[in-house]
Amino acid sequence: MGKLVIVGTVAFDAIETPFGKTDKILGGAATFIGLSASHFNVDAAAVSVVGGDFPQEYLDLLSNKNIDISGVEIVKEGKTFFWSGRYHNDMNSRDTLVTELNTLADFNPVVPQDYRNAEVVMLGNLHPIVQLSVLEQMEEKPKLVILDTMNFWMDCALDDLHKVIKKIDVITINDEEARQLTGEYSLLVAARKIHEMGPKYVVIKKGEHGALLFHNDNVFYAPALPLEEVFDPTGAGDTFAGGFAGYIAKTGDTSFENMKNAVIYGSTLASFCVEKFGTERMQNLSEGEVHKRLLQFKQLTQFEIELA
Amino acid sequence: MGKLVIVGTVAFDAIETPFGKTDKILGGAATFIGLSASHFNVDAAAVSVVGGDFPQEYLDLLSNKNIDISGVEIVKEGKTFFWSGRYHNDMNSRDTLVTELNTLADFNPVVPQDYRNAEVVMLGNLHPIVQLSVLEQMEEKPKLVILDTMNFWMDCALDDLHKVIKKIDVITINDEEARQLTGEYSLLVAARKIHEMGPKYVVIKKGEHGALLFHNDNVFYAPALPLEEVFDPTGAGDTFAGGFAGYIAKTGDTSFENMKNAVIYGSTLASFCVEKFGTERMQNLSEGEVHKRLLQFKQLTQFEIELA
Repeated sequence: MGKLVIVGTVAFDAIETPFGKTDKILGGAATFIGLSASHFNVDAAAVSVVGGDFPQEYLDLLSNKNIDISGVEIVKEGKTFFWSGRYHNDMNSRDTLVTELNTLADFNPVVPQDYRNAEVVMLGNLHPIVQLSVLEQMEEKPKLVILDTMNFWMDCALDDLHKVIKKIDVITINDEEARQLTGEYSLLVAARKIHEMGPKYVVIKKGEHGALLFHNDNVFYAPALPLEEVFDPTGAGDTFAGGFAGYIAKTGDTSFENMKNAVIYGSTLASFCVEKFGTERMQNLSEGEVHKRLLQFKQLTQFEIELA
Repeated sequence: MGKLVIVGTVAFDAIETPFGKTDKILGGAATFIGLSASHFNVDAAAVSVVGGDFPQEYLDLLSNKNIDISGVEIVKEGKTFFWSGRYHNDMNSRDTLVTELNTLADFNPVVPQDYRNAEVVMLGNLHPIVQLSVLEQMEEKPKLVILDTMNFWMDCALDDLHKVIKKIDVITINDEEARQLTGEYSLLVAARKIHEMGPKYVVIKKGEHGALLFHNDNVFYAPALPLEEVFDPTGAGDTFAGGFAGYIAKTGDTSFENMKNAVIYGSTLASFCVEKFGTERMQNLSEGEVHKRLLQFKQLTQFEIELA
């Protein structure tokens, strides 16, 4: 059982979808990643920052999932990062209504001493300088470093982003971001260009169209499970990443074949995340439910053509 | 080995893409379907119409692929159906520049006597009344009737379209068309509504995102092979349908499990179609090349998670 370090936001979200709206609820990349990875009972620690306004019950919620929160700094006089967004009718695009950085503006991540030898590091979406700082605190090169990022950093901090991309093993980004980062429309060509930037593995997330895993000339394509309805897509990408990272940390196997399974677990967990607002579905997810959906994924994708 | 009836256009296309443009070249739904189905050495007949301007060499090309063309009417004093289109840079959308119906305007399909007992009928995209007329000429209910259609008929001939949809077994349409036909955004819900219109099997084509097969509560999702570049998407949907129909006609097995394989063969053949202009790639496609790409499809999608 490997150790897993998760860095990312722990935040308040307020979400509007065609199905309804929420007040400030629990959100943030590290939250979704942690809840998802906790499914694998790994020894995980979250590295983040919150303000004095952050409810103890939310922190307890993470602790109760066996996520070490000694690396979650509480700035008593500060306020917690807050994001608010409204999804369009097709649920594939959204408008950001509010972004209040608050304590996140001065965030200096500190990896707890016990986790500086972690085998797997999951760098959730944050300023690339903050992501780099976490890597520099690790005692030795982790077995696998996974990075999530977004177009915002490509617009505002591209040089810093390239610095961290050079140092990581797996990058997870969506299709539009892969195209923006490389200037290539073909995802196959885009993945090859990203390989050349450093990461040996490239995961391109395509939302309802699934996710692709690239490694040298190998490609794996995990479709997304078709759903009756997507209730709230918030956190789906982080949940995917958390499932991926958690499965790798649990198995300790970074082969391409095993990463395929990590992608399937990530997709499976993400398919639950979107069923309710925020973290609600991930807070109450049984092993049996995950197992059943993995079987659905097998039926969805596996076929039997006899080929010599 | 079953017989296969293919009805659809045999046409001239003129195509512009970011990679270049063509003069009038061989095109048409029945052409692409026929070339794709011919890979399975089935006993296929094309039912269509052309004008006196249609080159004998194009007809020979179909004959040489063992496609019976006695049902392709030649209207000596008429002109062949002509379509011209220009693809946008992302290759996912296009503008129609010219549509000349010509002989197609008065097309009365006649199924050759020898093929009125065919086991499989592939109704390519045409006016639903023409598609219905073909079905009425069959001596008994075919084992499987597959219908392809498009949004144009939903706009202009919806009642007729519903009449033919009620009588067929498999419908192949793209995602936007499925949404238009049902008013549902979720493809899972859309497929259920289409089931209720008649077809026991619904295939939803998503272009670069693959294809979904629905039957009652069963779903199968075949991703598309990621390609370096899509040179010309013209005919990809018809090539998919031709591979699907040809594989079913060859195997005579209409079980859901076997239809999964038909979807994989359809996707495989379509992945070649887009590599060159028009039918060029499909005219020169070896069994070895298809076999190799099927293996790529397996590697692309198959995984090994042990589940009890």
